Amino acid sequence: MRLSPAAELALRGIIVLAEHYGDKPTTLRTVCEARDLPKQYLVKLFSFLAKADILTAVRGKHGGYVLTRDPKKITVLEVIEAVEGPIALNYCQHSPPQCNEKDCRLRGMWTELQEIVRTKLGEMTLGDCVRHPRRKKSAK
Amino acid sequence: MRLSPAAELALRGIIVLAEHYGDKPTTLRTVCEARDLPKQYLVKLFSFLAKADILTAVRGKHGGYVLTRDPKKITVLEVIEAVEGPIALNYCQHSPPQCNEKDCRLRGMWTELQEIVRTKLGEMTLGDCVRHPRRKKSAK
Repeated sequence: MRLSPAAELALRGIIVLAEHYGDKPTTLRTVCEARDLPKQYLVKLFSFLAKADILTAVRGKHGGYVLTRDPKKITVLEVIEAVEGPIALNYCQHSPPQCNEKDCRLRGMWTELQEIVRTKLGEMTLGDCVRHPRRKKSAK
Repeated sequence: MRLSPAAELALRGIIVLAEHYGDKPTTLRTVCEARDLPKQYLVKLFSFLAKADILTAVRGKHGGYVLTRDPKKITVLEVIEAVEGPIALNYCQHSPPQCNEKDCRLRGMWTELQEIVRTKLGEMTLGDCVRHPRRKKSAK
């Protein structure tokens, strides 16, 4: 059981933006160099995050990427689901379930576990994850 | 984030053995037909479970597969880890970690989440998952 590589990389990339929150836009190069990330793939992943209104691309000479909100208001769950789609820990958690078995007790366990995982990831924000918060003041 | 397809199929297959626990060995055909599983792949997955001493293959005319223990004494975690190896929810939970980032706060969150997931899966047994327990009496 593991996070998809796409969500893993997106999360690493966006942490860099969270660390630079409040500064001018961060270039793709800066993000990639900070966490040793593949440039082309990250562009694609960031486009998913832009669609989910988590970050935005700023064009121009001093362009780059910026978060649309304070990192304290962006959860790890949002980032993961923007890339992977809704978390589905296993076949029976897909909607509709990818399993025809009726009354299978495994489903109950997976539903419960999935809820625990979603809650935990939904409680954690990017603000909790940055190493050097740039801003101490609370978000608007 | 999701369970690997291998662990998913292994779990579905072994549930059939759990339902037949106490009977004569269950043939591969019976297991596959009960849960619509691919035969050749399941043989491979069951070989991992045999190595982990979770089930055993019985040769001969009335051969098949049997669990080595009461389903109540086999956890879902054991089955998953026998197939996937130790659960590592993301890169930084690998041993050694597949990330060189120092003091990354994401690691703490993933460590905590992983512990929650392992505990939950370790509490759930195959005995909890069977639909029609064959034996009411407790395990030896």
